Amino acid sequence: MTQTYNIFSYEEELKLESGSSLKSIDIAYETYGSLNKDKSNVILICHALTGSSHVAQNTENPKAGWWNDMVGAGKAIDTDHYFVICSNILGSCKGTTGPTHSNPETKETYGLNFPIITIGDMVTIQKKLVEHLAIDSLYAVIGPSMGGMQALQWAIKYPANISKCIVLASSASLSAQALAFGTIGRNAIISDKHFQEGRYIAANKPKKGLGIARMIGHLTYLSKESITQKFGRKLQEKERYGYNLDQEFQVESYLKHQGDKFVEQFDANTYLYLSKALSYFDLEKEYGSLKNAFEPIQARLLFISISSDWLYSTDQSKEMVRCCMNLNKDVSFCEVQSDYGHDAFLIEYEKFGSIIKPFLDSHHE
Amino acid sequence: MTQTYNIFSYEEELKLESGSSLKSIDIAYETYGSLNKDKSNVILICHALTGSSHVAQNTENPKAGWWNDMVGAGKAIDTDHYFVICSNILGSCKGTTGPTHSNPETKETYGLNFPIITIGDMVTIQKKLVEHLAIDSLYAVIGPSMGGMQALQWAIKYPANISKCIVLASSASLSAQALAFGTIGRNAIISDKHFQEGRYIAANKPKKGLGIARMIGHLTYLSKESITQKFGRKLQEKERYGYNLDQEFQVESYLKHQGDKFVEQFDANTYLYLSKALSYFDLEKEYGSLKNAFEPIQARLLFISISSDWLYSTDQSKEMVRCCMNLNKDVSFCEVQSDYGHDAFLIEYEKFGSIIKPFLDSHHE
Repeated sequence: MTQTYNIFSYEEELKLESGSSLKSIDIAYETYGSLNKDKSNVILICHALTGSSHVAQNTENPKAGWWNDMVGAGKAIDTDHYFVICSNILGSCKGTTGPTHSNPETKETYGLNFPIITIGDMVTIQKKLVEHLAIDSLYAVIGPSMGGMQALQWAIKYPANISKCIVLASSASLSAQALAFGTIGRNAIISDKHFQEGRYIAANKPKKGLGIARMIGHLTYLSKESITQKFGRKLQEKERYGYNLDQEFQVESYLKHQGDKFVEQFDANTYLYLSKALSYFDLEKEYGSLKNAFEPIQARLLFISISSDWLYSTDQSKEMVRCCMNLNKDVSFCEVQSDYGHDAFLIEYEKFGSIIKPFLDSHHE
Repeated sequence: MTQTYNIFSYEEELKLESGSSLKSIDIAYETYGSLNKDKSNVILICHALTGSSHVAQNTENPKAGWWNDMVGAGKAIDTDHYFVICSNILGSCKGTTGPTHSNPETKETYGLNFPIITIGDMVTIQKKLVEHLAIDSLYAVIGPSMGGMQALQWAIKYPANISKCIVLASSASLSAQALAFGTIGRNAIISDKHFQEGRYIAANKPKKGLGIARMIGHLTYLSKESITQKFGRKLQEKERYGYNLDQEFQVESYLKHQGDKFVEQFDANTYLYLSKALSYFDLEKEYGSLKNAFEPIQARLLFISISSDWLYSTDQSKEMVRCCMNLNKDVSFCEVQSDYGHDAFLIEYEKFGSIIKPFLDSHHE
């Protein structure tokens, strides 16, 4: 059995978009399926804010991945045909170098001394990984949410090396409202008494602040309809109000539980960095216009939005699609009808799969 | 000159909906205009979560009120014709008895020993105030947002005493999404290290937590369109990113400023109580059905919603209107077209005024 979970150590100095640089970067990645002879079956999957390289279960790690229903033998992204790579993003706390790692020069944990990283930087190091694997071209790059931003950057930065690009529930930049939710979450983390300017210790993490950031984030991933359908105004146990300041409604304890669960598996500094990377992503600003940004793209493009997603709206996808059409790019677009909000990409795998599979499997060059 | 700001001290024991009771309640209220001979020109205005009795400026207090453009001589709610009363709600920190006041029995600040209060309790004590002023009937009761809930309660509880009822940007209960935003805000307050289980001291208030609660609240009062138009992704000063964790976007510093400003003029415990009162309000639960709740209403009703209000949606107003129509109530409805979101009732006074004024001034019994 080939090992599916690997660490690639990039030892050269990586120049970052901020002007800073990083040395000795570990990239955690997992592969699924087999690389074919002419290396023409490679799909790179880019994950969202809090994801990891574990996109699906495998014999080495049978734990369900974050896109378990989408990736695997016989599934929409079929590992019987494709060689799938998913790497943990730069700056994360799930294996790849980030604020929780040690600075090899000082031997101290980076914390807030970690340099600011961008979506572009995440893509640059992913490219190094792909080169390390001796792969020249990607058959497809696919990403939902923040992963969609990475997929777009790939198609723009390395146009000759990508045949297909799938951007799900994403945008060319965060809306002002999404920026605002992000900054409130970061404020909650920084305000936590245990934050200690990022130098918190394992026994005293800023759990409350990170929990609140997660509750805000999670709520923006759900549509108004889905929480109404799932919880409405139902109380937890009783029929009558307790007339106290406790959490009595089901939606309250659900959100609290989401926050509590999250703080056990994620790092507060990391959240600040990745949330800030999201805020900085702005193709219009980076390239002068969306037209300039998309001009070099050679890949066939597929944009998918979610009807009830108010964080990354259909309008934002349509704006990108319109720009691609004006540039005569080979672009497809579909709005998935779903009540689940932004999180639908993790839930409605049949709807997404039925669009992604034929797009991937069709071969008309 | 008659005094416009008054305190009415209600000395009897007030039985609350929770089963608890309160003694010696101070009600801060302001009046505008003059009571006519047959006392038929009284309008009670009910304020929202963080409002006060100071609905408009007057000679005694020339500071602009929270609805300054709506209430005054020659304005939509014309104090040349109407005698306007606005009282600070029970449990607030703007003059009426609430958690910041002293328990007359123990002489200690109530804090979290204050009993849970409801919208119904707020209305009960408002009724005591009206009786104290020797007024039998209200010509109209008007309220936006949480004030609209009070107006509805008035029309339901005292049907024979009200001619007209105007409910603006409100609902018969909070949606699950609104409950969720409320609970995150309360969590932020309780998580603040200075909260000290509600026994915080003036020099060390839980400002960060309350500030975050306000930022969340404020963001839900704005529409996606309005913050996009007002701020978009504009940076504060520079053209280029600073590549740090600072607040660089205008929308970030705006929200932070809103939070910082708010904590100087509002109390954290009070926010918990009033937010919880909002959560508890549920006419369907209280009366078994909306139909049962609205059945006794005799007042002519006017519901106004705001097209871009996603916190108190037009659908929620329409549900109430439909129920009133089925009950053959005298009901009018208008959706104000505005991009300002929930806060439009504080901004678009011409649009609101042009609907409210004719409704108030018409006399067809």
